[in-house]
Amino acid sequence: MKHLLAVDWGTSSLRGAWLDADGRVLEERASARGVQSVAPGGFAAVFDEHFGAWARTPDTLCLVSGMAGSQQGWLHAPYCECPAAFDDVACQVRWIGPRRIAIAPGLRCEHDGTPDVMRGEEVQVFGALQLLGMSDALLVLPGTHSKWVRVRAGVVETFATFMTGEFYALLRQHSILARSLPPTDAESDDAAFDEGVAKALRSEGLLHTAFSVRTLALFERMPIASLASYLSGLVIGEELRCRPPGADGSVVLVGNASLTRRYARAFDQCKVVVLCVGPEATWRGLWALARRLEQR
Amino acid sequence: MKHLLAVDWGTSSLRGAWLDADGRVLEERASARGVQSVAPGGFAAVFDEHFGAWARTPDTLCLVSGMAGSQQGWLHAPYCECPAAFDDVACQVRWIGPRRIAIAPGLRCEHDGTPDVMRGEEVQVFGALQLLGMSDALLVLPGTHSKWVRVRAGVVETFATFMTGEFYALLRQHSILARSLPPTDAESDDAAFDEGVAKALRSEGLLHTAFSVRTLALFERMPIASLASYLSGLVIGEELRCRPPGADGSVVLVGNASLTRRYARAFDQCKVVVLCVGPEATWRGLWALARRLEQR
Repeated sequence: MKHLLAVDWGTSSLRGAWLDADGRVLEERASARGVQSVAPGGFAAVFDEHFGAWARTPDTLCLVSGMAGSQQGWLHAPYCECPAAFDDVACQVRWIGPRRIAIAPGLRCEHDGTPDVMRGEEVQVFGALQLLGMSDALLVLPGTHSKWVRVRAGVVETFATFMTGEFYALLRQHSILARSLPPTDAESDDAAFDEGVAKALRSEGLLHTAFSVRTLALFERMPIASLASYLSGLVIGEELRCRPPGADGSVVLVGNASLTRRYARAFDQCKVVVLCVGPEATWRGLWALARRLEQR
Repeated sequence: MKHLLAVDWGTSSLRGAWLDADGRVLEERASARGVQSVAPGGFAAVFDEHFGAWARTPDTLCLVSGMAGSQQGWLHAPYCECPAAFDDVACQVRWIGPRRIAIAPGLRCEHDGTPDVMRGEEVQVFGALQLLGMSDALLVLPGTHSKWVRVRAGVVETFATFMTGEFYALLRQHSILARSLPPTDAESDDAAFDEGVAKALRSEGLLHTAFSVRTLALFERMPIASLASYLSGLVIGEELRCRPPGADGSVVLVGNASLTRRYARAFDQCKVVVLCVGPEATWRGLWALARRLEQR
């Protein structure tokens, strides 16, 4: 393989990167053509439209992670069962055509009688660990659906999803609290965010603490412009309050700068040490997976 | 007073009852003209349209509880501060005109640095306790915003709001889980509801457990028609998981039959004994308050 076309095809976005044989990112592209915007049967055309020139370059491997492997995606790549090593993931990629385009599977685990799933984050997990040179960690990938992932000796033992970003959006846009909040988010207010985190960590749960956004506004105890940051602190603090046992040492945070910055502030209140890795974890994970596929 | 016109004017509904001097309900009326549907200055006309004939009957007192006393309501009746006895609430009613129509105040308490409020539920609390002949209880009033109210020696010491009904509606209608659920609720499935409650009680929080609605649907581990009941169990179970210390003996549940039935099932899993009081608590509370006003 002289080049890797690495693609992260999520629910609402499509991102691709063009890498050399050593894993260096030469160029990146992103668009809003997430899986939910593509009609059944339309994936090859969207892929070609975005990445055709790269994909047709000789000696190029194309590797796609994320929701493109779901039942509503390009080609169904069934979940890999946890505990799952990197090799297990490599074993379960599915090929489109003659070994030129591969779709990565997601991960599935079972906890307390219910399954949990991820698609795309597993690539970031392996990429982040490789960038850090680690094989044991608790990783946190914040987002619409945050993932907490326990890795030991390079094996994803188990993980858990928290609907943190989605709960924030629901409360921000559709709940009674939206009436107390300004229509668009003002600049982030760190002090208000920290206050929300602290309140959440002291509390029993978000069902109760969320109502304080309304009462603080009602009695003008917090400036309107700070309430969205406070609510963000309540919701992220709630995620940390629910954190699994063993999260008291350090965690690896994987995500974009604005999210990891917020989470790092919140973890600081829990006295948890944080290592941050940016979105480059995706490209590194896909590159490492491509190398593994070549060796097989 | 020969008659009492008792009115519960909430955010989204308007209910009134016509009572005799002994507190017997002679007739009831309800409509969708909640406070949020009435333009500023329009309250007297809506009141007259619904209850004018009753209100004009000689020797009739009109007593209104709920959001009609809020800043966006008919006449602002400032919150009564907790701890609050029944007499404190009576002291703070506000009169419209020459002592014919009174607006009840709500209650306010302070906990962990943030205020909490109720409007209307305080009347149900006093009414339920009078119907039961009790003066010490932990009361739970389920709803869009559930209230947990601690009363000792007839005094509301403190209370807490849980946005349970609203979280259910947000998840049911606006979240990713809505895609897994049938468009309209099927008949309630008690077994699925109980499973949701049990899961919530074992868990750390709803941010995580809510995602199981999606995965149970994804792997066809629960019939689609049962998922809404399961989600209802998760959300109500979450409220009970967060319950304040001292809720391990018995609680008084105040609300309509379908809601109190669900909560009673959930409390049963916590081994908490439940006494149920229906919506008649509102009329009894307003009647008791009217009697107190006469004695003043």
